Amino acid sequence: MTKIIEKIRASAEKRQFFYSFEFFPPKTDAGVENLLGRLGRMAALEPIFVDVTWGAAGATAPLSMRIADETQKRAGVVAMLHLTCAGLTTERALEILHEAKTRGIQNLLVLRGEPPKGSARDCWVGSFQYAIELIRLIRREFGDTFGIAVAGHPEGHSDSSSQEQELIYLKQKVDAGADFVMTQFFYDVSIFLEYVSKCREAGIHCPIIPGIMPIQNYNSFLRMTTFCGTRVPPAVIDSLGPIKTDDEAVKHFGVELATEMCQQLLDAGTPGLHFYTLNLERSVRQILENLSSRIGTMSRKELPWRQAIIGARTNEVVRPINWANRPKSYLARTELWDEFPNGRWGDLRSPAFGELTDTHFADFPVTSKENRKAMWGESPQSPAEIYDTFANYVEGKIPYLPWCETSLQAETLTIQPILAQLNRHGFLTINSQPKVNGALSTDRMFGWGGPNGRVYQKAYVECFCSPELLPYLLNICQHRDQIGVLAVNRQGQTESIRITGTTALTWGVFPNREIIQPTIFDPDAFMVWSEEAFQIWLRLWASLYDDDSISCELLHNIYNSYFLVGVVDNDYIDGNLWSLFEDTMIASRGPCLS
Amino acid sequence: MTKIIEKIRASAEKRQFFYSFEFFPPKTDAGVENLLGRLGRMAALEPIFVDVTWGAAGATAPLSMRIADETQKRAGVVAMLHLTCAGLTTERALEILHEAKTRGIQNLLVLRGEPPKGSARDCWVGSFQYAIELIRLIRREFGDTFGIAVAGHPEGHSDSSSQEQELIYLKQKVDAGADFVMTQFFYDVSIFLEYVSKCREAGIHCPIIPGIMPIQNYNSFLRMTTFCGTRVPPAVIDSLGPIKTDDEAVKHFGVELATEMCQQLLDAGTPGLHFYTLNLERSVRQILENLSSRIGTMSRKELPWRQAIIGARTNEVVRPINWANRPKSYLARTELWDEFPNGRWGDLRSPAFGELTDTHFADFPVTSKENRKAMWGESPQSPAEIYDTFANYVEGKIPYLPWCETSLQAETLTIQPILAQLNRHGFLTINSQPKVNGALSTDRMFGWGGPNGRVYQKAYVECFCSPELLPYLLNICQHRDQIGVLAVNRQGQTESIRITGTTALTWGVFPNREIIQPTIFDPDAFMVWSEEAFQIWLRLWASLYDDDSISCELLHNIYNSYFLVGVVDNDYIDGNLWSLFEDTMIASRGPCLS
Repeated sequence: MTKIIEKIRASAEKRQFFYSFEFFPPKTDAGVENLLGRLGRMAALEPIFVDVTWGAAGATAPLSMRIADETQKRAGVVAMLHLTCAGLTTERALEILHEAKTRGIQNLLVLRGEPPKGSARDCWVGSFQYAIELIRLIRREFGDTFGIAVAGHPEGHSDSSSQEQELIYLKQKVDAGADFVMTQFFYDVSIFLEYVSKCREAGIHCPIIPGIMPIQNYNSFLRMTTFCGTRVPPAVIDSLGPIKTDDEAVKHFGVELATEMCQQLLDAGTPGLHFYTLNLERSVRQILENLSSRIGTMSRKELPWRQAIIGARTNEVVRPINWANRPKSYLARTELWDEFPNGRWGDLRSPAFGELTDTHFADFPVTSKENRKAMWGESPQSPAEIYDTFANYVEGKIPYLPWCETSLQAETLTIQPILAQLNRHGFLTINSQPKVNGALSTDRMFGWGGPNGRVYQKAYVECFCSPELLPYLLNICQHRDQIGVLAVNRQGQTESIRITGTTALTWGVFPNREIIQPTIFDPDAFMVWSEEAFQIWLRLWASLYDDDSISCELLHNIYNSYFLVGVVDNDYIDGNLWSLFEDTMIASRGPCLS
Repeated sequence: MTKIIEKIRASAEKRQFFYSFEFFPPKTDAGVENLLGRLGRMAALEPIFVDVTWGAAGATAPLSMRIADETQKRAGVVAMLHLTCAGLTTERALEILHEAKTRGIQNLLVLRGEPPKGSARDCWVGSFQYAIELIRLIRREFGDTFGIAVAGHPEGHSDSSSQEQELIYLKQKVDAGADFVMTQFFYDVSIFLEYVSKCREAGIHCPIIPGIMPIQNYNSFLRMTTFCGTRVPPAVIDSLGPIKTDDEAVKHFGVELATEMCQQLLDAGTPGLHFYTLNLERSVRQILENLSSRIGTMSRKELPWRQAIIGARTNEVVRPINWANRPKSYLARTELWDEFPNGRWGDLRSPAFGELTDTHFADFPVTSKENRKAMWGESPQSPAEIYDTFANYVEGKIPYLPWCETSLQAETLTIQPILAQLNRHGFLTINSQPKVNGALSTDRMFGWGGPNGRVYQKAYVECFCSPELLPYLLNICQHRDQIGVLAVNRQGQTESIRITGTTALTWGVFPNREIIQPTIFDPDAFMVWSEEAFQIWLRLWASLYDDDSISCELLHNIYNSYFLVGVVDNDYIDGNLWSLFEDTMIASRGPCLS
């Protein structure tokens, strides 16, 4: 289901409000990288789509295409690409449409657009005078390949003689094949609601999605509302007056105002909201937080990890847990596979499983050495300092670890104190999940997969630990018959307790679906992952320090001697993996028993 | 895992006693058919293997081969085939071994055997003087393709000069490649235990399985013990004396004696028991029942239904629930498939899904019309009489229904009273299972899949009901949002509530395994099954009566007007499908609300 109109209908069936985000292509390469990171984070808010602007007369076309592509492939969110008539020839339009189709971009916002700056109206070039002509071309040449949205102008359009005339044009566009309407932003909700009524009277029955642009800055707000001829209610102007030079206060007001507008829109029966983000994250995040009681606190996740939107990978439904905090590496290493038999990777031991290369370590979210040193230590001198860095991550004091390029999962917060204690003791956790015994699939923390289901998890911890500490852990685990342990060091020396095959770690039960089992512990995958995990000590951390420094030596020692340990608690009903680690910490303060 | 020695080792690891059954090829075709039925029933006792004798000098070879084959294919139990040297040429031996290999028969009991009756010792023909020569041929020509067992004689063998000599021969056979020893039957446990000690002293360390032959009849007991030179303890002779003409009393004594012997053997550390059944069922079943506290009340089922032992079907791990009580028909209709992608049938709508033919209705366990009339009514005159027949089945008063060719599942007993009531009301149930929320996988009633797991079921009922009754059910179901219903009549008219896809009905969670989901409700499979289910009214039931009889007309009317209904309760935690049916029964006594 990658056409937006289908997703809108599915939301309506679930009686769930939806929302979408608009971004524009940044001007610099660094800006693009930052935006892609932001897209990844904002994907976790579960917008039903992200749309990407096209620049005046397609000025940013190749970059827009790339961002839409990455949105679908990396962030796992359906993308909608803008397409404007201005300056577009039929030949070029077909070229773009073929490229979009090839890339699996299946949604377009078809606009008339403005001519490039400085062009006189009579310099208008291109094969399409109006959006409807482009819509007709798309439907004629591509049938129903693409979902098509069109723009609505609640406050009129500068080129239209009258709103009546404009609604006639809009109806023609819908009749020609547009699926839904997205409106220009506004600050007076009543204007939008009247516009919807008039559309309905004019025979336009498709969804009409209001555009919301949170005020970010007083000057840009004035500029844009003036340029677009947007009516601003006097109360808004009055409120902004006294704070207009205080950017934070303006932003805060913008969030409050947008929240109130959204409340009114939802009250009036609007099915969803479209946010003009201006490539910013905080305001939209805050507005959605404010609305959480309205738009529902239900989990909107389809799976615990983000499924791909296009390609063979859309069939993927099972992943080993190990790459959970390094999904890009997993995607890259399995990139060449064109089949996901049984909804999963083929054979991890096969030659098709990507070898480790420099690129697997190059694209860490924090690129500068200085910033990474600031997070992980300017010059760590002892294991205790290293242990502290891991604990700091668990406590949310630093955003990343070399092994964790996503920020802490919400569910990890439930086990934060014990995790921090473990790390300071020398169990350096890089992946974990608590047990879950039949939580509702809509549970905000643990839920996924939609309503009316139940979800389950086996508790899992993955950590590095010293060869001195490992025997205490193994000894305690030996006596707990529901525990499985697999440990390996860089040299490939392994220790294993009760691990004889692949174990389901996360699964869900739903009406009208077979059992879904998105996360597993696979001993073979663990072994493949361990090579990558050990490399990370050197490539992402030790490399920050001079070759002959104590810090560098310290990290090399850890790399050379520590074990990577995976611990599975099969008792997801009554088990307590944390008490096991507590017992281990107590035991390791006394003499070793094993 | 189809080699018996591996299964013996697995039992030892699970600390589970095992048992096996021996059968011989019957003399008549009817006898063969009865034996195959018996094998199917006795398979439910979960023997680790069944062995099939070979007849003197291979007299019954082709039939033995066929029975071993059917044991594996239909009953889903590993078979061991006897193979005797007597009269066997190398060429014939290779032929038999190739055939066994082709059929997937992977276990052999290699014996010297006796020459055919009437042959003088010097008329012995064949290429092999001793079993060890045949063992060597098997290992030389087939490597470790076959598991090999050899016979042990705790009371000596008529041909051996001394027990010492015999143990030397036995050790040679084990060294030549035999995996384990099965002994001749005995009635003095101490003789067996001494024999095991002597074997160990002689360096024979493989498993030695005692043969138990429950006394079935006084005369045959005397004849066999005399023929084999078996020592019978005086107490046994004393006990049999007064009851020797009372067959039932002898049988009963045989069960008690064998139970006591088995207790002593298990006490002494014997890992398992082999029963010489003489093709009889009751005594062995009773002995195992008596021993249940010793051999464990744990479920030994691998899956809720019996998996095939050989062929592509060994990969099958998912079945639609509908054929649960007619497994042979399911096997036949999917017989031509050579692939079970994702562990299941391919596409039920594909041309490869077997069409219904006469043979699908021909092999009902009760072949004679008279016997079927006795079960299902000599001449039913009203729907109420038909309803009563269904209730009688649920109450265990008759062993089969036309749709149920296996006797009632143990778990169905837990819902017997409500089921009987439903049937008398006109909901003619042909398949059902109660909900199970995380029962131990070793639970005697619901468990499967081995130790340390948890199993789950969604409650399911499949029934016929009249077009008058159906609306009441649909109306109640409409208001229970966790219920899914699919109903169809012979004409293909369907009613559906919340059925939009395939639902897992039975699943299990285990250490070191992915989620196992052996039973599903698949709407497409339900539709395919419904055709068969409607045909059964005519082919197996109406056909018992004259064409112009009231009974025949009655059954045709039901066939033509009733609906087949499947009801799934997705709430396997708190749901109560039975209260739903109770509400329906109450509602249908008042006016219809829908």
